[in-house]
Amino acid sequence: MKKLNIGLIGYGFMGRAHPNAFRKVNQFFDLDYQPVLKAVCARHRQKVEAFAEKWGWEGVETDWRDLVERKDIDAIDIGSPNNTHLDIALAAAAAGKIVLCEKPLARNSAEGEKMTRAVEKAGVANMVWFNYRRVPAIALARKLVEEKRLGKIFHYRAKYLQDWTISPDLPQGGAALWRLDLAVAGSGVTGDLLAHSIDTAIWLNGPIESVSAMTETFIKERKHQITGKKQPVGIDDACAFLARFANGSLATFESTRYARGRKNQNTFEINGEHASIAFDLEDPHRLQYFDHRDDPLSRGWRSIHVTDFEHPYMDHWWVPGTTIGYEHTFINALADFLASLSKKQRFRPDFRDALETQYVCDAVLKSAAKGKWEKVSQPK
Amino acid sequence: MKKLNIGLIGYGFMGRAHPNAFRKVNQFFDLDYQPVLKAVCARHRQKVEAFAEKWGWEGVETDWRDLVERKDIDAIDIGSPNNTHLDIALAAAAAGKIVLCEKPLARNSAEGEKMTRAVEKAGVANMVWFNYRRVPAIALARKLVEEKRLGKIFHYRAKYLQDWTISPDLPQGGAALWRLDLAVAGSGVTGDLLAHSIDTAIWLNGPIESVSAMTETFIKERKHQITGKKQPVGIDDACAFLARFANGSLATFESTRYARGRKNQNTFEINGEHASIAFDLEDPHRLQYFDHRDDPLSRGWRSIHVTDFEHPYMDHWWVPGTTIGYEHTFINALADFLASLSKKQRFRPDFRDALETQYVCDAVLKSAAKGKWEKVSQPK
Amino acid sequence: MKKLNIGLIGYGFMGRAHPNAFRKVNQFFDLDYQPVLKAVCARHRQKVEAFAEKWGWEGVETDWRDLVERKDIDAIDIGSPNNTHLDIALAAAAAGKIVLCEKPLARNSAEGEKMTRAVEKAGVANMVWFNYRRVPAIALARKLVEEKRLGKIFHYRAKYLQDWTISPDLPQGGAALWRLDLAVAGSGVTGDLLAHSIDTAIWLNGPIESVSAMTETFIKERKHQITGKKQPVGIDDACAFLARFANGSLATFESTRYARGRKNQNTFEINGEHASIAFDLEDPHRLQYFDHRDDPLSRGWRSIHVTDFEHPYMDHWWVPGTTIGYEHTFINALADFLASLSKKQRFRPDFRDALETQYVCDAVLKSAAKGKWEKVSQPK
Amino acid sequence: MKKLNIGLIGYGFMGRAHPNAFRKVNQFFDLDYQPVLKAVCARHRQKVEAFAEKWGWEGVETDWRDLVERKDIDAIDIGSPNNTHLDIALAAAAAGKIVLCEKPLARNSAEGEKMTRAVEKAGVANMVWFNYRRVPAIALARKLVEEKRLGKIFHYRAKYLQDWTISPDLPQGGAALWRLDLAVAGSGVTGDLLAHSIDTAIWLNGPIESVSAMTETFIKERKHQITGKKQPVGIDDACAFLARFANGSLATFESTRYARGRKNQNTFEINGEHASIAFDLEDPHRLQYFDHRDDPLSRGWRSIHVTDFEHPYMDHWWVPGTTIGYEHTFINALADFLASLSKKQRFRPDFRDALETQYVCDAVLKSAAKGKWEKVSQPK
Repeated sequence: MKKLNIGLIGYGFMGRAHPNAFRKVNQFFDLDYQPVLKAVCARHRQKVEAFAEKWGWEGVETDWRDLVERKDIDAIDIGSPNNTHLDIALAAAAAGKIVLCEKPLARNSAEGEKMTRAVEKAGVANMVWFNYRRVPAIALARKLVEEKRLGKIFHYRAKYLQDWTISPDLPQGGAALWRLDLAVAGSGVTGDLLAHSIDTAIWLNGPIESVSAMTETFIKERKHQITGKKQPVGIDDACAFLARFANGSLATFESTRYARGRKNQNTFEINGEHASIAFDLEDPHRLQYFDHRDDPLSRGWRSIHVTDFEHPYMDHWWVPGTTIGYEHTFINALADFLASLSKKQRFRPDFRDALETQYVCDAVLKSAAKGKWEKVSQPK
Repeated sequence: MKKLNIGLIGYGFMGRAHPNAFRKVNQFFDLDYQPVLKAVCARHRQKVEAFAEKWGWEGVETDWRDLVERKDIDAIDIGSPNNTHLDIALAAAAAGKIVLCEKPLARNSAEGEKMTRAVEKAGVANMVWFNYRRVPAIALARKLVEEKRLGKIFHYRAKYLQDWTISPDLPQGGAALWRLDLAVAGSGVTGDLLAHSIDTAIWLNGPIESVSAMTETFIKERKHQITGKKQPVGIDDACAFLARFANGSLATFESTRYARGRKNQNTFEINGEHASIAFDLEDPHRLQYFDHRDDPLSRGWRSIHVTDFEHPYMDHWWVPGTTIGYEHTFINALADFLASLSKKQRFRPDFRDALETQYVCDAVLKSAAKGKWEKVSQPK
Repeated sequence: MKKLNIGLIGYGFMGRAHPNAFRKVNQFFDLDYQPVLKAVCARHRQKVEAFAEKWGWEGVETDWRDLVERKDIDAIDIGSPNNTHLDIALAAAAAGKIVLCEKPLARNSAEGEKMTRAVEKAGVANMVWFNYRRVPAIALARKLVEEKRLGKIFHYRAKYLQDWTISPDLPQGGAALWRLDLAVAGSGVTGDLLAHSIDTAIWLNGPIESVSAMTETFIKERKHQITGKKQPVGIDDACAFLARFANGSLATFESTRYARGRKNQNTFEINGEHASIAFDLEDPHRLQYFDHRDDPLSRGWRSIHVTDFEHPYMDHWWVPGTTIGYEHTFINALADFLASLSKKQRFRPDFRDALETQYVCDAVLKSAAKGKWEKVSQPK
Repeated sequence: MKKLNIGLIGYGFMGRAHPNAFRKVNQFFDLDYQPVLKAVCARHRQKVEAFAEKWGWEGVETDWRDLVERKDIDAIDIGSPNNTHLDIALAAAAAGKIVLCEKPLARNSAEGEKMTRAVEKAGVANMVWFNYRRVPAIALARKLVEEKRLGKIFHYRAKYLQDWTISPDLPQGGAALWRLDLAVAGSGVTGDLLAHSIDTAIWLNGPIESVSAMTETFIKERKHQITGKKQPVGIDDACAFLARFANGSLATFESTRYARGRKNQNTFEINGEHASIAFDLEDPHRLQYFDHRDDPLSRGWRSIHVTDFEHPYMDHWWVPGTTIGYEHTFINALADFLASLSKKQRFRPDFRDALETQYVCDAVLKSAAKGKWEKVSQPK
């Protein structure tokens, strides 16, 4: 078993999801590589040391540049806010490190292009944690699409709804709430949530060609968490867009953090000539499937309990009928990434894939700002 | 078109469901017979006249014996409380009338046997309004069973849950609440609700051989609606039983009027070697179907929206995707009954079928009283 | 009881839904008016006579102008294809008749304006059969909105999905398929399905101010049913649009007849500050409701079984737990209309309301054609 | 942090669920104790060494008696088949070890009584892995019951349905299929599945007083996995029973491995005077709750997405809207057990609780064998 020494930057929400994957992957997947929790980096020494002890990291750093320079680190995992991705990725690539990056790749495609160029020029393996591709039900959707069960695709529709920012008393910025701070996050729901929806959509249905979008910021001012001052809110609270895919299908996408009662409702539906597929992340172990070729008497939407050994990833976990949770999508992704290292194959989604999503996000925001349809740039 | 002159007894809840069927059946089904609302009978002249006018009955009677004697009546429809079924049915049969009887057939199988003998001796067409057989989804279940899609049957489970008698302030007896009065109703949930479940079960899964039951009366005393006096409650508020079918399958049945939140939840599930079926009357337009022979990747419970033209009865109604309601089960049943008159075929369920259900009810109540397993009598 | 003599034009699908309502309304609602099936009109005498006999119409006409001229007709019910609405409505209004019109009001707002002006100038009562307002669950949604349970509204999203035109072998035009013929229908899914969604949306959430739409015609040529010739398809097979409401909320609307597995899936969801509502016409007896003010432990989406006596219209029908069907939405609408006649109140939706929906449809089609945002005209 | 040295016996299915909990608990819960994977024991040295390496066990044993004797072991975790529980538990208790035991406690209550006496006499902390008590939704159900939200309880109904033994070609016995071997398992679905249902039921609704049961063995003979010989099947393939609880409520329980389409459907429903609760393990992150005290207009079954920070255990995991999986129930249980060690409190369920469940199982099997109602013994 080859050791893969990991250096993680950031210990927020993703700072738990990633090391949990590093610690568990080898008990559930047979792999050539074993991730080693070499060092974790954050600015506050005391806090990062406590974190390191809890999770079993061998050491800590307080400056990410020191981490990137370390010879005993094979891979840099970027789990810090969006505004740090560019510099870290460039430095890590330059240092010849494998780079794992939390999504979205960057605040915009200008940053994303630099990052993609950097890892490709350096020839280092790279991946972006669009973890939902590894929800077994979504992987199953991909499999059904690949098997051409749906026939010609007419429609794609996606939503990503949450409700946690409705209160005007919620501040913006700071460690916990940087997602509300435009300078740090780059955008609101578009980069945070729609990026997921778009990554899944492209994976399942191919390139998006053009979009017409609208955005809204419902709460115009919020107190800043750190400064305590009321400041204008720069992010998009909500975003919806129409789209046309290269394959001729029509799409609607929508995301908001103002949909009361929707906690993390990431949904999509695909309608094809012969069959349709629907998914809802609030019931992540189920995939809905309708096949018009079933006999007319008993035809109906099938609620597939995606927990059988035949289903993607599920032979690695428990027994049919028992579910896995949110964290397993990171473990499944990591297992695939480690396997791709062994096979020296391109892992998907990598920086290039994430850049494609970034181009869509940029076109969406531009369309919303200008009030007109926009063409989507495609990675060269 | 042959006229079929109807004389209805009773104008309560079923006094609306039946004439609604008589009035509508010919617009939606092509039949040789046209029911004519000849006369309706109830004791209170003023009320029955108002009712007759509203519904378009040609005349009224206040004594059912007079109605039964009328030469211009072809069919007697018994919509009055259970304790009246026996006498009316016997008289109607003796008068050579077709007899339609609301379920349950009678208060007990002793009465039911007399009634069955009477109509069979008289050779008159007869039917019992176990209307749920004509819910399209239940008729579809029957079709799937007949096509032997399920293979050997292992399990049958049925529930019929309501919650309308939980309040101890609800009185018993009188016009509206005779279902709580043992002398009138014959039993509680067993005759009122389980009779439905049993009729459906026998239709779908064949004869029941033995049962072990328990019953309970949660509210021991209630004021009588008419006398105003507190009286012991004689009916079973709840009843559950284990059963073995002749085909070797095991069953559980349960009914209550104390299941908070369940308004009219009549459910069943059948598990066979190859496939399973599940139904819930609170979503009457859907049938759940699981077929293990579907390919392993996309296998799942199918939610069949039973509204396609291919589905039972649905070519008579609207368009795919649009539902019919509770009242249509009576119209579908009536259409089948009228067609059976033309073809001179036995209509199912008739008195003999309902008697079979009555035998199960009797065995259930006896088992509960004695605390032991009971064999079920079978109609000879 | 006052008689209201009805003259119906057309006997297709709606030619059954309307007279069914006329025949049933008085048994289930206490009203001053009783509709009388005076005459039905269609061009083919033999067919219309057979239809009249089946449904109990007293007479027939073969030219709608003759029907409109008859002195013994109080109300003209327009159930014929969209391209006939204008002329009939104008003539009926001129003749002083009450006018009931199947939706959409017209092929476009130019026609709709003339119709609205005509009935208003004539001062005749008028209504449009946007029957879904009278689905009890939708009426309940309106009630919850009126009670201001939702707080400030952030989002509205609606879909109307069907799948019956996917086959390229389906012809266009003729009696059964005029909905696919642009000249007759005026548009495709926009007028046929989105008109329903828009009417409901305006009723629940107020005026729509601007839209950005896209449409698609997936099958470019179809054989004409009557001529047998291949002709270009002029209608929109699918249409999706973004919208902004006057109340500041954002919306997405989508409709198609190419959503495999969706038979008649008319859905909407409203997200407010405190509560959200969701509906799906494929389960028409349920309304989903989430109230954030419920205690945090037990808060969840409530699936309201809209069959209690407290729920809109349900005290007129059966008992709690039992459902009504598609046809009842017409009966409920008719009952309200007849009651409005007695009270001499404006019935909603009338021509003016339907014109407002027509303006949105026109803006949607214009936006799709031009590829840019359009303002919606508002009725003066 | 105190180390708690674990010695595990068995490495089958539970041999993965338990150590996964030992390895993860401290990253997600703040505890005084840290489990240490000291040694794992199984008969086949090579296999157990491979297992130990994969999971990070410090050492191995091949005779459980050696493990129990080791001074460096604090707690013995029994993950081996049911027929080994008695001897190991007795030896472990005698050696003064903490004892963790996979469910069911034993093959029958005679064994269970000895085990309970042993741990109580030795005064060692003990627990049984009835992990489903720690499904957050079930823990929430318990909380709602404790808060007396339901009022007087009328009904309890539970099912535990699987479908993995329908094929007659499935052998019995051996490492993987000992659950089908009567001598090893003690019983079929009763001990394996109903034990779960009963443990949950007693926890939520108190003691069970009497039962009437039936069992069935559908496949009468199966090849033995090891010997290759056809042998009679001794276990119950299916079991259903009626029950009466001490609190006066009525219950039905049912379990089978012959319910096609049900993978691991462990359900229960409780109906109380004011409110009802329903749960289905196939959607483990949801709890259904109906409260009759909600306002009549908007009252409905609430689908609680049990992922908010307020919900049991969920503040230890991810963010609202994200689910946890099957394995987390073991981690939650372990966390509670370790906390109980610190507080020197009785952990529930311990051996005594599991013995109470065992008494019910014994009464059920006896009732089925004799065909009559049986009283349930209660732990003294």
